Amino acid sequence: MGIIVLGSYLSPYTLRVLIELEELGVDYELKLVNLKQGEHRTPEFLKMQPFGQVPVLQDGELTLFESRAITRYLAEKFDGQGTPLLGKSMKEKALVNQWVEVESQNYDRPLISIVEQVVWTPSWGKTTNEEIVAAEMAKLEKVLDIYEVQLTNHKYLAGDFFSLADLGHLPGTHLLVNIGKKGAIFAARPHLNAWWEDISSRPSFKKIMAKTS
Amino acid sequence: MGIIVLGSYLSPYTLRVLIELEELGVDYELKLVNLKQGEHRTPEFLKMQPFGQVPVLQDGELTLFESRAITRYLAEKFDGQGTPLLGKSMKEKALVNQWVEVESQNYDRPLISIVEQVVWTPSWGKTTNEEIVAAEMAKLEKVLDIYEVQLTNHKYLAGDFFSLADLGHLPGTHLLVNIGKKGAIFAARPHLNAWWEDISSRPSFKKIMAKTS
Repeated sequence: MGIIVLGSYLSPYTLRVLIELEELGVDYELKLVNLKQGEHRTPEFLKMQPFGQVPVLQDGELTLFESRAITRYLAEKFDGQGTPLLGKSMKEKALVNQWVEVESQNYDRPLISIVEQVVWTPSWGKTTNEEIVAAEMAKLEKVLDIYEVQLTNHKYLAGDFFSLADLGHLPGTHLLVNIGKKGAIFAARPHLNAWWEDISSRPSFKKIMAKTS
Repeated sequence: MGIIVLGSYLSPYTLRVLIELEELGVDYELKLVNLKQGEHRTPEFLKMQPFGQVPVLQDGELTLFESRAITRYLAEKFDGQGTPLLGKSMKEKALVNQWVEVESQNYDRPLISIVEQVVWTPSWGKTTNEEIVAAEMAKLEKVLDIYEVQLTNHKYLAGDFFSLADLGHLPGTHLLVNIGKKGAIFAARPHLNAWWEDISSRPSFKKIMAKTS
């Protein structure tokens, strides 16, 4: 029995796991969960994921949720196969963890609020709240200023190696920059922009994105 | 050169690291950062932690921030010393990671919003916004319902062993239950309540809490 991912192409957190599996070169089966039809709220699904969210990973007897826990598990399980994603030394591993946490705590929160307003809300036939967009953009720009400094000193977030920390930024940033058309805040920061051009040109990302459109 | 923690007894994220160091039986030096005097906003501090937050860990040449990255680093570095906190098998480790993420994404967010309103806002001489409290309490209660199911099936969050996932809940829940007097939502859920009684009676927690009062 191989790796099974239950998820949706609409979920950036599902895409994060799929991009990682491409980087690792691991075969997997994607079982689509139809969010529009509420398949993530059925009693069967809630038995696996009580919060009603995707993705969920199944690996033999293990059922695992929360995308950052899944990506860590896969990177450790398939360590030595495909792209190394966790860092080599204890110091590198710690800095990868640190920037995974920065993504989780500082980057993703304003980003998802903006994406909700400029991408998802219009798709539901509702009106974007521009006040929320402006407030969250201001928060995100402060975070991006810190990223610009880090990416001036290092090619990638945790150092001079691509890692899980960079990978985790791909699907959400794609929604913000390519779908939500908010790329100007990236273009204004040259090292951040070069980083985004670099990581978004990876074959793993292009392959998964091609499936979403 | 040993472990140095820069932080504040006012910060639940600092306390999480200190409780872990007690569990591991690791000597450390705490350098207090005076948040009221803005010492976390000085140019010297921002060089270590560009987001201006505590705690920060220093271990020789490594400077590390984000409390969940710090606790993982310490648990791995001192694996085999004191209380095992990460799980033994790959499956246990994955489930510890999952519940650390649940704490981060689902538990801590409403909890901190409530604590801000019922603990910190009054201490600043400002008025609690009861609408925010009610909305965030409703969110947190849904999360606690899921915890009650999990803790009916297992003694601790990730299984029948105390781990980093449980430990991470201690300082925030202390603020909610003991300082903010919101313990009724715990008392109403017997397995959750038994878990809280269990983890909050650990000597590591009591020792650190005694220093905060």
